[in-house]
Amino acid sequence: MNNRPLPDGLSEADLLGGLARMAEVVGKKWVILEPEAGLTAYYDTQSTLPISASMPSGAVAPANTDELQKVVKIANEIGIPLWTISCGKNIGYGGPAPRKPGTLVLDLKRMNRILEVNVESAYVVVEPGVSYLQLYEHLQKNNIPLWIDCAAPAWGSVLGNAMERGGGYTPYGDHWMMQCGLEVVLADGTLFRTGMGAMENSNTWNLFKYGYGPYIDGIFTQSNFGIATKMGVWLMPEPPGVKPYMITFPREEDLHQIIEIMRPLKVPGVMQNAAVLSNLIWEGAISTTRDRYYRGDGPMPESARQKMAADLELGAWNMTSSLYGPPAVIDTLWQVIEESFSQVKGARIYLADDRAGDPGWEYRKKLMRGQPNMTEFSLLNWTGGGHVDFSPVAPMTGDEAMNLFNICQSNAHEFGFDYVAEFFGGWRQMVQVFMLLFDPEDADQRERANQLFSVLIREAAANGYGEYRTNLSFMDEVAATYDFNDGALWKVHQKIKRALDPKGILAPGKQGIWPL
Amino acid sequence: MNNRPLPDGLSEADLLGGLARMAEVVGKKWVILEPEAGLTAYYDTQSTLPISASMPSGAVAPANTDELQKVVKIANEIGIPLWTISCGKNIGYGGPAPRKPGTLVLDLKRMNRILEVNVESAYVVVEPGVSYLQLYEHLQKNNIPLWIDCAAPAWGSVLGNAMERGGGYTPYGDHWMMQCGLEVVLADGTLFRTGMGAMENSNTWNLFKYGYGPYIDGIFTQSNFGIATKMGVWLMPEPPGVKPYMITFPREEDLHQIIEIMRPLKVPGVMQNAAVLSNLIWEGAISTTRDRYYRGDGPMPESARQKMAADLELGAWNMTSSLYGPPAVIDTLWQVIEESFSQVKGARIYLADDRAGDPGWEYRKKLMRGQPNMTEFSLLNWTGGGHVDFSPVAPMTGDEAMNLFNICQSNAHEFGFDYVAEFFGGWRQMVQVFMLLFDPEDADQRERANQLFSVLIREAAANGYGEYRTNLSFMDEVAATYDFNDGALWKVHQKIKRALDPKGILAPGKQGIWPL
Repeated sequence: MNNRPLPDGLSEADLLGGLARMAEVVGKKWVILEPEAGLTAYYDTQSTLPISASMPSGAVAPANTDELQKVVKIANEIGIPLWTISCGKNIGYGGPAPRKPGTLVLDLKRMNRILEVNVESAYVVVEPGVSYLQLYEHLQKNNIPLWIDCAAPAWGSVLGNAMERGGGYTPYGDHWMMQCGLEVVLADGTLFRTGMGAMENSNTWNLFKYGYGPYIDGIFTQSNFGIATKMGVWLMPEPPGVKPYMITFPREEDLHQIIEIMRPLKVPGVMQNAAVLSNLIWEGAISTTRDRYYRGDGPMPESARQKMAADLELGAWNMTSSLYGPPAVIDTLWQVIEESFSQVKGARIYLADDRAGDPGWEYRKKLMRGQPNMTEFSLLNWTGGGHVDFSPVAPMTGDEAMNLFNICQSNAHEFGFDYVAEFFGGWRQMVQVFMLLFDPEDADQRERANQLFSVLIREAAANGYGEYRTNLSFMDEVAATYDFNDGALWKVHQKIKRALDPKGILAPGKQGIWPL
Repeated sequence: MNNRPLPDGLSEADLLGGLARMAEVVGKKWVILEPEAGLTAYYDTQSTLPISASMPSGAVAPANTDELQKVVKIANEIGIPLWTISCGKNIGYGGPAPRKPGTLVLDLKRMNRILEVNVESAYVVVEPGVSYLQLYEHLQKNNIPLWIDCAAPAWGSVLGNAMERGGGYTPYGDHWMMQCGLEVVLADGTLFRTGMGAMENSNTWNLFKYGYGPYIDGIFTQSNFGIATKMGVWLMPEPPGVKPYMITFPREEDLHQIIEIMRPLKVPGVMQNAAVLSNLIWEGAISTTRDRYYRGDGPMPESARQKMAADLELGAWNMTSSLYGPPAVIDTLWQVIEESFSQVKGARIYLADDRAGDPGWEYRKKLMRGQPNMTEFSLLNWTGGGHVDFSPVAPMTGDEAMNLFNICQSNAHEFGFDYVAEFFGGWRQMVQVFMLLFDPEDADQRERANQLFSVLIREAAANGYGEYRTNLSFMDEVAATYDFNDGALWKVHQKIKRALDPKGILAPGKQGIWPL
């Protein structure tokens, strides 16, 4: 117990005193203090930094909102900082671990009720601990003709991912856009509901997002201003038809043409869901191992990559997307899409029944139907399980795509890493997720990965690209790139933080927002 | 000058001293103090209350953001409350007038630059004073193939309407959803940008809504936390085809069946834009006058309404909507829509070329193509120009629609007024706008209208319906209906208000948020 990191300004006795009071609320079993008792589940083992850099002092897991409020009040009284997690699967961005060592993890996994399923208006209300898989299975079991939209890992929290503004693979892939209605607990234990839910007997809490007066839901995302305890989530009615497709493009430089073709199809919605453009190694790593093609140090050489592409029938870029709707609508849109991307020399088109036995195409098809799975985790076997995601946003143009790609791949190679990435074509922007994979047991790799990430943040910012989300270790650095008018926006965040959480107990350091 | 209402706690000398300093910033011409000099333009002449209830002490109109910041700083120093307007056309909800007499109107009409038009990514950046008509004409003149989405009045502010979370008639009708990027000035003059604009050299400010960290744009809507000075607005690329349609339904009780048909078409997007269901008098008042059908007091009797419906080929309900996209997609969706609504007995379908010379259908078609016009103002001639809008939100079900309709029409009739209303079918909710029209010169009508409005707020709330927006005179009453957990959400609003505007100089009372 002597190695326990403590929150700033708290003695171990203060902390343990508070935890004892919390145990009276949640039961002893749900205050976790020792590694042997399960505290290791709250470590970030994939980080570029050692586990100690984000090691919690303990974890507490309330069973319901009432217990949660009591726990928060105790923490607020004593000054114990809390790091809220839902299912704790914020993989690549820190997982379940807190920003600062010694922070107590507030684990909401036990609050996992599906509170409402409204079939006719196509929404659910969930607690933080409800995972994609749980929700999916609930709908399946009850033959409810609604689709969820999931992030890649099935075990992720529906609410938690939306609060981090994550994305998915159906037309409902903008998870924050599909959120409708929040219940929030503040640092002092106050509970309130947003939007129409602010009316006691409202019948539209989960039907109309904005309510009356300031629309404040968004301030609780990627933030530490409050704790979301319930969320309304819109679901997509099962469409009358689906047509998933994959198109491979042979050359890295095709990226320019692909994106120029994509933009005028994405903006008016001819392409209805995220157009995911994964590079060769990403797609290949789902079905093969690095060793088969290269056993040396440093990035996999071009020759090995070409061999892999040929073996696996993959391109330098591989686009997966899907059409949804009445078959006649799908046919019309497909004609445009097929014709457009066929202009890229060497493009190869695969439909649903093609590529039999390719686990990459199988999991893509599942994600685009909102069927949660764990296939994407195969990627972690590529190098040994270390993994941080670099996720800058860029305009959806060929020039910007090539520029961002070049910055990331050339730096990755220079620092000795493979470039493993996806471009997500959004409505008007694209996000590039560079999965920086490394061996966490290798201190040198870890250090290089850590340096590379900082270089990428700086070079991206110099080119006008900002990250939409980032790993714990880089939250301050990324925040510092948001520098308009001397960081004026973060000063506004700090004012709101002080107003809603004056003692600064909620998630200190989250997204670069610290207590003052 | 002796009748000038003064802000609380300020002497006329304090106020005039501040205004003199503001005149040094903006020029004497742009500090308006006397009715004869144009102050009457800031009165709300359509209210149920006398003009004195919302009479400003004066108005000041800066030419640019720099002048605006200086004006705000002076106001903050002296304690002069400011009521910000963009084009001042918030008609039915208070127009340009402040919530509290004596507040100084901060008129941003001179800040009317279209700062950027991005054709390939389909957005514009505008200042507050840019009207729908101005933006439309700019795009037309330059042959830019982008459509705007306008509120009914052409003179409204693109930015201002979005900040009030107003709606329009194309698939981009949720104006707040189509906003991307804000610049805001706080009460102390601080300027910041939201989302990606918080990065100095960002290239995605108007492409990606959320940025990094808390997503705070929404707190500046329907609020008094800051002043929006620039906004990115997504525009719809001109579609390859458009098919507007109008369907009339003969009986009031058809509303139930119509809404039950509408919901499963709206939720999956078969109906792509707002399904506007206007009642007989709304649609009829566009092309005729009340006198032609009824000259008595009180609501127009059933017999007169039936005569009007027959003469004008209108139904008790009249739905206008449109399809957009490739012709083959339109054809497919139209088959479903035509077949579905034809199930309502007596439904009559009109397409674009039908109803030649009907100004009602003409203006509806224009709105659904984003062509600003002023036709809807014909409605104000119905009774003499008094007008407040009652706008509750309800679930999109037949039962709820009939219940809300009955509450509004029966109370309107009981208080002696016509029921003039539209239901807007949204994505999962519907909003009913009851235009309460009265003669503002008639003190008795005014008083009855005022009483009716309060009755409606109470009865709606008792049935679970809350207003999404309301007239100045009823902002506190509506806020009080948002009563969950003892009004906890408004207490949060007050905390944020205090943090961002500690002296409470911005728009006191807006949406029921007052300085403390």
